[in-house]
Amino acid sequence: MTLSLAADLLGVYFFAVSGSLMAARREFDIIGSLFLASLVGLGGGVVRDLIINVGVPNSFANPVYLAPVALAALSVYAASTQFLRQTNWLLVADAAGLALFCISGTSRALQHGLHPISAVLLGVTTAVGGGVLRDVVANETPSLFNRHDIYAIPALVGAALTAALWGLGAYNLVTGFVVAASVFVFRIAAHRGG
Amino acid sequence: MTLSLAADLLGVYFFAVSGSLMAARREFDIIGSLFLASLVGLGGGVVRDLIINVGVPNSFANPVYLAPVALAALSVYAASTQFLRQTNWLLVADAAGLALFCISGTSRALQHGLHPISAVLLGVTTAVGGGVLRDVVANETPSLFNRHDIYAIPALVGAALTAALWGLGAYNLVTGFVVAASVFVFRIAAHRGG
Amino acid sequence: MTLSLAADLLGVYFFAVSGSLMAARREFDIIGSLFLASLVGLGGGVVRDLIINVGVPNSFANPVYLAPVALAALSVYAASTQFLRQTNWLLVADAAGLALFCISGTSRALQHGLHPISAVLLGVTTAVGGGVLRDVVANETPSLFNRHDIYAIPALVGAALTAALWGLGAYNLVTGFVVAASVFVFRIAAHRGG
Repeated sequence: MTLSLAADLLGVYFFAVSGSLMAARREFDIIGSLFLASLVGLGGGVVRDLIINVGVPNSFANPVYLAPVALAALSVYAASTQFLRQTNWLLVADAAGLALFCISGTSRALQHGLHPISAVLLGVTTAVGGGVLRDVVANETPSLFNRHDIYAIPALVGAALTAALWGLGAYNLVTGFVVAASVFVFRIAAHRGG
Repeated sequence: MTLSLAADLLGVYFFAVSGSLMAARREFDIIGSLFLASLVGLGGGVVRDLIINVGVPNSFANPVYLAPVALAALSVYAASTQFLRQTNWLLVADAAGLALFCISGTSRALQHGLHPISAVLLGVTTAVGGGVLRDVVANETPSLFNRHDIYAIPALVGAALTAALWGLGAYNLVTGFVVAASVFVFRIAAHRGG
Repeated sequence: MTLSLAADLLGVYFFAVSGSLMAARREFDIIGSLFLASLVGLGGGVVRDLIINVGVPNSFANPVYLAPVALAALSVYAASTQFLRQTNWLLVADAAGLALFCISGTSRALQHGLHPISAVLLGVTTAVGGGVLRDVVANETPSLFNRHDIYAIPALVGAALTAALWGLGAYNLVTGFVVAASVFVFRIAAHRGG
């Protein structure tokens, strides 16, 4: 439960940062940035919670979920242009969100009794959903569809590993974060190589 | 309850009108107009009701919600081109929908026991959601992201005022419509000045 | 129930094929194709099940729903370019999905006690929803809005016929497929004539 919440809040933070970075790139103002941060940070999780039918989705049941969103929008707003241009932060933040959401989405679905195959599908949906929403609303073609980039496969591998660990009774704080870290490294390496 | 239903139906009407006006601008036919009217008029409320987990969303549980949508599409279809060009009706209809949905979304969330902060977030989501759906489906960049326009702040102020009035036990027909009217005026004034 | 499941799985298959064909047209890779197939094949049904409030949506409760999606992506991937160019398969697949989803969406809503008018609205939403999602995510203007094409009327007629048959107690395997076949023929004929 604590692992789940920590992974969720961290995932929200990184996806929200990717939303705010997209907003900065498109020269949206602070409100547009906050909105895109909320949509990307919370959108995937809301869809996940509606599908697994747990009542009011976490992000609305528990206001603590708004903290990482606000923090993300503020930190991007405060960062210097020079810092923002140092590296492709949008890729880094998106990869971190993807990695965390694929483990939290899959494990949450398993926790609520979904079939492992459905849980993997839901984990992947949650992991790629935020980024697709971000790109569709900002009127860009989702990275998911870029044939020179490997986007969904790391999420699929991460979700499948999570389901396997769960089935073996070996899913915990340590193994969960190892999976997430591997997905992150895989995603970044795949992009660099691509 | 009656205030809530009246605000909801009026909000549906105005958002549906904005959808039909967008359809007219893009030269969609009457069916495209009806569809965009339904999506903009009902979309935000469906998302709101799914999130606060009240069973079948109002607009599907109660067919009366289809009346304002049909009325909206027909009235835009029947209006003369000259009348439609007199002023920026899309802005006016959108501002009215925004104003009404931010009070109805917030109060409905509070009624179902959400935390005030979450209720404000849901009110803003409902208020800006319809317009974002309209612009995304019609393949335009949402007004929300126009840095020369103030779009979400009036909704945020209105939702916060609604939550404050609710907390003070002072939310009723009169105060609700005063808040909605202020949000409407604020939104129009902000646009004029922008 | 069996009719409903069969119509659903066939509808998922045809919509998923239309998603994969769109992916092929836009030169997405196999993962993008699988994703668009899932979104178009499953998206409408997930929204339908969330709205009629039946717990975990079918496509996540029952992994058999993933079979037609995978089959669709693989069959489009395996098809020869020459075969794909023979006719407008995207139109054919979309029309078949539209026809099947308008009967399955309407009957499922009626089965869960929705008002016939709401059931018709939900049937139409489910029938056009997948295609709209497909076009929005692939960054194209939805066919729904093409004024030279008749898209939503066949779905509306099919949903209304389904509701009428249901009301008369005459909705069954035979009449259901007759309605779906008529919707399909109507949609194709309307396009050819358009």
